[in-house]
Amino acid sequence: MLLLHKLRPSFTLLSSSSPLSFLSSSSSPRVYSTRSMATVDESSLRKALSDKQSALEAQGNAVRELKSSSAATKPEIDAAIEALNALKLDKSSIERQLQALMSNGEGTVNKEAFRQAVVNTLERRLFYIPSFKIYRGVAGLYDYGPPGCSVKSNVLAFWRQHFVLEENMLEVDCPCVTPEVVLKASGHVEKFTDLMVKDEKTGTCYRADHLLKDFCNEKLQKDLTISSEKAADIKHLLATLDDLSAEELGAKIKEFGIVAPDTKNPLSDPYPFNLMFQTSIGPSGSSTGYMRPETAQGIFVNFRDLYYYNGSKLPFAAAQIGQAFRNEISPRQGLLRVREFTLAEIEHFVDPEDKSHPKYSEVADLEFLMFPRQEQVSGESAKRVRLGDTVSKGIVNNETLAYFIGRVYLFLTRLGIDKERLRFRQHLANEMAHYAADCWDAEIESSYGWIECVGIADRSAYDLRAHSEKSGVQLVAQEKFSEPKEVEKLVIAPVKKELGVAFKGSQKNVVEALEAMKEKEALDMKATLESKGEVEFEVCTLGKTVTIKKNMVNIKKEKKKEHQRVFTPSVIEPSFGIGRIIYCLFEHAFYTRPSKAGDEQLNVFRFPPLVAPIKCTVFPLVQNQKYEEVAKFISKSLTAAGISHRIDITGTSIGKRYARTDELGVPFAITVDSTTSVTLRERDSKDQVRVDVEKAASVVKDVTEGQTTWADVWSTFPHQSSTATDD
Amino acid sequence: MLLLHKLRPSFTLLSSSSPLSFLSSSSSPRVYSTRSMATVDESSLRKALSDKQSALEAQGNAVRELKSSSAATKPEIDAAIEALNALKLDKSSIERQLQALMSNGEGTVNKEAFRQAVVNTLERRLFYIPSFKIYRGVAGLYDYGPPGCSVKSNVLAFWRQHFVLEENMLEVDCPCVTPEVVLKASGHVEKFTDLMVKDEKTGTCYRADHLLKDFCNEKLQKDLTISSEKAADIKHLLATLDDLSAEELGAKIKEFGIVAPDTKNPLSDPYPFNLMFQTSIGPSGSSTGYMRPETAQGIFVNFRDLYYYNGSKLPFAAAQIGQAFRNEISPRQGLLRVREFTLAEIEHFVDPEDKSHPKYSEVADLEFLMFPRQEQVSGESAKRVRLGDTVSKGIVNNETLAYFIGRVYLFLTRLGIDKERLRFRQHLANEMAHYAADCWDAEIESSYGWIECVGIADRSAYDLRAHSEKSGVQLVAQEKFSEPKEVEKLVIAPVKKELGVAFKGSQKNVVEALEAMKEKEALDMKATLESKGEVEFEVCTLGKTVTIKKNMVNIKKEKKKEHQRVFTPSVIEPSFGIGRIIYCLFEHAFYTRPSKAGDEQLNVFRFPPLVAPIKCTVFPLVQNQKYEEVAKFISKSLTAAGISHRIDITGTSIGKRYARTDELGVPFAITVDSTTSVTLRERDSKDQVRVDVEKAASVVKDVTEGQTTWADVWSTFPHQSSTATDD
Repeated sequence: MLLLHKLRPSFTLLSSSSPLSFLSSSSSPRVYSTRSMATVDESSLRKALSDKQSALEAQGNAVRELKSSSAATKPEIDAAIEALNALKLDKSSIERQLQALMSNGEGTVNKEAFRQAVVNTLERRLFYIPSFKIYRGVAGLYDYGPPGCSVKSNVLAFWRQHFVLEENMLEVDCPCVTPEVVLKASGHVEKFTDLMVKDEKTGTCYRADHLLKDFCNEKLQKDLTISSEKAADIKHLLATLDDLSAEELGAKIKEFGIVAPDTKNPLSDPYPFNLMFQTSIGPSGSSTGYMRPETAQGIFVNFRDLYYYNGSKLPFAAAQIGQAFRNEISPRQGLLRVREFTLAEIEHFVDPEDKSHPKYSEVADLEFLMFPRQEQVSGESAKRVRLGDTVSKGIVNNETLAYFIGRVYLFLTRLGIDKERLRFRQHLANEMAHYAADCWDAEIESSYGWIECVGIADRSAYDLRAHSEKSGVQLVAQEKFSEPKEVEKLVIAPVKKELGVAFKGSQKNVVEALEAMKEKEALDMKATLESKGEVEFEVCTLGKTVTIKKNMVNIKKEKKKEHQRVFTPSVIEPSFGIGRIIYCLFEHAFYTRPSKAGDEQLNVFRFPPLVAPIKCTVFPLVQNQKYEEVAKFISKSLTAAGISHRIDITGTSIGKRYARTDELGVPFAITVDSTTSVTLRERDSKDQVRVDVEKAASVVKDVTEGQTTWADVWSTFPHQSSTATDD
Repeated sequence: MLLLHKLRPSFTLLSSSSPLSFLSSSSSPRVYSTRSMATVDESSLRKALSDKQSALEAQGNAVRELKSSSAATKPEIDAAIEALNALKLDKSSIERQLQALMSNGEGTVNKEAFRQAVVNTLERRLFYIPSFKIYRGVAGLYDYGPPGCSVKSNVLAFWRQHFVLEENMLEVDCPCVTPEVVLKASGHVEKFTDLMVKDEKTGTCYRADHLLKDFCNEKLQKDLTISSEKAADIKHLLATLDDLSAEELGAKIKEFGIVAPDTKNPLSDPYPFNLMFQTSIGPSGSSTGYMRPETAQGIFVNFRDLYYYNGSKLPFAAAQIGQAFRNEISPRQGLLRVREFTLAEIEHFVDPEDKSHPKYSEVADLEFLMFPRQEQVSGESAKRVRLGDTVSKGIVNNETLAYFIGRVYLFLTRLGIDKERLRFRQHLANEMAHYAADCWDAEIESSYGWIECVGIADRSAYDLRAHSEKSGVQLVAQEKFSEPKEVEKLVIAPVKKELGVAFKGSQKNVVEALEAMKEKEALDMKATLESKGEVEFEVCTLGKTVTIKKNMVNIKKEKKKEHQRVFTPSVIEPSFGIGRIIYCLFEHAFYTRPSKAGDEQLNVFRFPPLVAPIKCTVFPLVQNQKYEEVAKFISKSLTAAGISHRIDITGTSIGKRYARTDELGVPFAITVDSTTSVTLRERDSKDQVRVDVEKAASVVKDVTEGQTTWADVWSTFPHQSSTATDD
């Protein structure tokens, strides 16, 4: 099926089989990286290294000759040796430079140390937990522990508020268990695969492209003797890895002599492995089902009902939040590539002839980093631009797509994603499905590089058409004309009597082929028949060409009155990988600062109150009944106000308790140090004010919910200087 | 494994294999129904029918004799025939009474009509949709459409507020894909099964107990000639259906000659079918996984980390909301028995020696319908009682269990469940696992009968012990003593030297068996050894009895100082079937009322604002630009206030628009009928007040969020009489 030659672009989100998966762990997109990596710097370094190596060999020979020559003086030999040593130093220096460049620059070590610090904190404070840990876990499965679970439900609640409620979207909730027919129609059963190789002796499975990629990266980083031409070849291979067929991948693996990493055994040829978890629905074993790889299909199959629910009006959007599943061959990259994850997807259905958006003007003036196709191809970098300009210049295909790009930008930055480390990257022509009008990914920079976290694609009518065809149920919209329109229509009328005489049993195939002609083909036939009286005509279903005579078919243009237009809507799909967004948020929110004593680094997550797992902690300064009663009173008021919080009545020092709460990203802390008023502290500034006990909960509520800011609080209430209670 | 002889009671929730599954579709619990159905009424009716049948036969014979006798006069014969006809009429009347009784009384027809009206409305307004409808669907899978999805997310948000936030629970979020080892430890791999039979020719699968149950019910309802003894036998069988082994079920199916319902082919013997959806994790095919049948296991395996997160303090509760899966053999009962559903589960970990609850007093005075074991067994019905009394009388096992029963009552009634159709039913002794301390189900009455929607079980230490054993990781808590305690401990010290001489290679087995003795057994042995010098001792692992002599083992009691107590916590588990609660809520909220013209019945859902899918609709009275602008202004204000709403600018009459919005359960409607003030209407009373345009959104917000009531609004704002704008 040609239609499925390219997968639906949303497959690329979180998927491993897509061109992007390579990119998401590199620092820049494919074409750009190919070019930028082959920069003058690296090339000249390799040249210099090779020159230095030749000079070194020549000088070595010279030293040997001098030593064996009786004519050479001691000073002459010493000078030659000195020159040799200088050359060795030079070579080492070039090697170090090249090595640093090949391991993605000097930032790598810092990035990994930073990531380790974040991940350690996240695991220690139970933001997440490797699932089934007491049974040694399962690769690619993670639990959200209590603070992670709160962050996740805050992110999802805000997503609902920002998209579903604000845009009056129709939210649905469909099962994860999906019958095969649905995923055949969508193309997943046939195409949702990665190429796999097996250790021929142990049966251990590997992703073929991962092995090749690891081999190439190691070659580039460790083998500094390869020429810049060879290095360029390897880098080209890396960049085009995902375009390779099973045969091409297999040939490369053979060519490089790649073996199983653990056993050094030979490997099988690569073959496709479907990434869906398969199961069986009902007891008979005859009804295959899969755990859905995305939530979108549940919306497409309901299009007809949803359109009717919306009063048979376009545009409208449906949305779904839910689990999706991908049985990765060998998951890597921690929380970024997992086997089960939460997706939040929007399918915005729109008339293909009118992709304007009524609220477009609300986002048109936003400015942020965008990275159009052209800039990627010409080796430039992402630039800060006004969203509206990209539409007027035709870079972003239409207003609705731009509207969602703008809304996604607002969503992510309000969560706390750093706008300097967020860019919208347009898909290159070869990344997009042939039917897609335009696709942009919201990419967030993390210690793993730029990570695609949201895909925003104009998928045209592809999905609805695929399900219409497979199910026989027309998933279409109607536009009723206010008054009938006169349209010119091509009419192809085969003359069955004449065709029957000429083609007998094959008549039906010929009739169908004639009726299926496109307008241009039919008009050409009409012209030929009029000029020559007959025409050769290929009937695919017969596998041969037949001769059509003038009396066998009537082709003409007719004027007709039409009362409505029936069409398949286009769909614009913003698709959010919630787990990836949350992981990037963790990295962007994390920082360390020295303790007051200066003897250790303390961890802080600077979550905005919107996503903070707990909004406030309440501490009695010392363990005494009066303070505990005040703390309990404030706790009750906070619960009544719907503000999540914790009381900490452990006897540890206030400094330690602050450190503990900062590490969870709790924005506010109330220290009960009198029975009439309390100290309220803000996490990042460590500023403190005094607030009456009765007011404490409502002050925290207002600043947490964004009715006021900390600056307002700071200017309203008396300041409390940092005392012994502070860290 | 004896421990798994009974399934964990939470299996019963939504499960089909449990004793309760039969009950949930009947109108009363097992023992009660057995007794109440065998009431004097039915029994005397059967007796009367049987008597009448005999009388009828006798009279028939009498008539025939008279007719054939030449001595009989016409009046005599006529009188005899008249008596015969009278008997026939009497018999028919008794038959009708018996039939009505057997089909659960006269309410059945009404209940089914009511259910049909609810379900039609729910499907038509897309509260739910059979999943993958355009592909003819899959039994037991349903989508929530837009209003259903809103109701669901409102219910879940309130659950989080009412339980997680209010009680400071630790919420976690674990994957659905679960490795086999976890579900082996929990007992699901071995025991989570239903008995199935196959059509021997076509292979079609049926639930064995369903076939037998259908047969018995039909026998009772249609065959009125059976004696009351026979009827009692059949009813006893129905009541004990779930206790039958595969062999017993098979024997009954053979005895009754039950065949495949569709084909009349013979059936296979019953065999167990595991209800978990099976899959394979990773590409090798060697790692079996299942879609979790409940969310609880994800919490148990994380106990150690969660306990540490809670500062190593008990009690604490963990909670999880998520999808669970059960591959039902043949789903029935619409939304009540499905293959994928949302569970919300709480695992409250507590010291088994102290099950008091600090907030118990907050619920102790609640009064509602409770149905203790004793009342069920003695054939009484549920009674309204004070919760605290059931604890003080020892009916409810402990304060914590009672606290959760009270909290569940508050949760369900605040959602809109009718408190007269909600009862808490205690499990009978034979429904509970042997390790369970006490179990109560929140049952809601629906057109299907009393439905178990929440299970609240004190499961003792069972689950944590099972995972400790399987994983080798100790899932325990410590209580540190403020000062060391002196405790008396039994010490069993086998004398290995002597044992080695006596038992050689078997020494190890004997040592282990001696050390494994329980206290009483060991003290008995000690006494026997002291009196007789030797004792016979069974060593299971050797499969034989050995002779233990006095010099082979030392048994004594020693006093030791202990600094802490290490123990496995008990767990109290409230487990909520969210889909079942929602379906019952739909039934309790639904009513009809005549339209103003009286020509049709209009459907209304009386959802409280808390769960209503949309809180408010905004209509311009007539289509004009000024009114539309006002409507848009109000819409914007509502969005800013976070109140979900819809604008309806279709030209249809206000009456029709009200009907449409009532049918979605929208509590408030704003009709824009001027540019300065608008009409605000409440759904159930149809009362209307006039509110300023600027105030409209905030009035709706306050009454929706419960800051004010409709009574407050009604007494504050000018009333608007019902005019042409009303329905």
